[in-house]
Amino acid sequence: MSENPTAAVLVIGNEILSGRTRDVNLSYLATKLAEIGIRVAEARVVEDRTEAIVAALDALRAAYTYVFTTGGIGPTHDDITAAAVAEAFGVPLVEDPEARRRLETRYRPEELNPARLRMAAVPQGSLLIDNPVSQSPGFRIGNVFVMAGVPRIMQAMFDGIRHSLKGGPSLIARSITIWVQEGLLAEGLAEVQQAHGAVELGSYPFLREARLGVAVVGRGTDGAAIIRALDAVADVAARLGAPVERE
Amino acid sequence: MSENPTAAVLVIGNEILSGRTRDVNLSYLATKLAEIGIRVAEARVVEDRTEAIVAALDALRAAYTYVFTTGGIGPTHDDITAAAVAEAFGVPLVEDPEARRRLETRYRPEELNPARLRMAAVPQGSLLIDNPVSQSPGFRIGNVFVMAGVPRIMQAMFDGIRHSLKGGPSLIARSITIWVQEGLLAEGLAEVQQAHGAVELGSYPFLREARLGVAVVGRGTDGAAIIRALDAVADVAARLGAPVERE
Repeated sequence: MSENPTAAVLVIGNEILSGRTRDVNLSYLATKLAEIGIRVAEARVVEDRTEAIVAALDALRAAYTYVFTTGGIGPTHDDITAAAVAEAFGVPLVEDPEARRRLETRYRPEELNPARLRMAAVPQGSLLIDNPVSQSPGFRIGNVFVMAGVPRIMQAMFDGIRHSLKGGPSLIARSITIWVQEGLLAEGLAEVQQAHGAVELGSYPFLREARLGVAVVGRGTDGAAIIRALDAVADVAARLGAPVERE
Repeated sequence: MSENPTAAVLVIGNEILSGRTRDVNLSYLATKLAEIGIRVAEARVVEDRTEAIVAALDALRAAYTYVFTTGGIGPTHDDITAAAVAEAFGVPLVEDPEARRRLETRYRPEELNPARLRMAAVPQGSLLIDNPVSQSPGFRIGNVFVMAGVPRIMQAMFDGIRHSLKGGPSLIARSITIWVQEGLLAEGLAEVQQAHGAVELGSYPFLREARLGVAVVGRGTDGAAIIRALDAVADVAARLGAPVERE
């Protein structure tokens, strides 16, 4: 998977850190990016605080091919993402004529108040990201894609940009469930991992109806190699007398 | 809220970054920590990779009062959290006699294989964190608390340590729902925020059955101040003729 471009997801918003709202955008983006061969290698959640956003952006955009942010681009006082991105890139925040035009298609002139006009301000040099749900756009600057936090809007924005991303071979994941205690499987699993270097094997124990099981996930870009590795894991399970459920 | 201790949550695991599994530990920890007056100020999700874990730990333990990690302390080859924490603290990974004793209460001698014994290895100088579900303990070293990723086990571990944490005044959150477009509420909301500095007001738009609404959340340590601020927000909504639902 080393040939695959990488990505980071930066979730911006006190509502996630307070525990009030559970983030669902990371798993959506990770799944969709894997399909086009981009591996999400890190995610961060930061507060609605300029310094926190700038610090995270600086670290992530230097380390990964792409950065996707969600949240903080609405009209209210706590929506500070665009200004923070401008600060991170050292450019002014400017009103984008096309962004304003799109807001004008949604709002009558008397409705387009200063708060709503804030949504037309983007860091200088940005490209707009379409918002087919509520018009006010996201934007891209450098390798950073700035999107809404509302999942339905974020998903619509991502749909519009995914074809512009340079991906790699699709990242495939397949799993099998083994009804065994993880500690009994561990040694054999490590041997399979040793023998199948092109596949990354992950082991995820769970409790279901008071019964212990392990989901073994094989990830990589070679579907046949993943199946061979999971077949070898199933052989280990069979030697242990443990029931196996294939996907 | 500046007097409140802070925390970071570090979620360790490829399964979260691949999109396969949605993290639920952050919202649990954030909610429980807020109750004892500890504010989660950042969260990160990193891969099962030693350098990634060490880098995140070094950044977070320097920046926040407490760091809580979840994931990667099981018996399999991809469970590398304990070794990574030892590396971050510059201490050896050692078998803890008490951790081994606990494993011996769960497993017969012939069941206590090398993979399971890995779960008795902790960074030198750690204190154990009880695991009433499956015995193999978590551990604390410095300001870092290392816990399991399986939510039920993580929650049981947290129950055991919460009384040892030094909190601050409880962090209270109250919300009201206003059936209005966020852009109409923004100006009045900013004025309320200006006038109620002790309360942090967050504005979260949503779509429900094709209807636009805004959840306004007031956060802080002074419950009466929060209610006053939300009353003022409700007044703004009333002037706009927007329906309000109180919690």
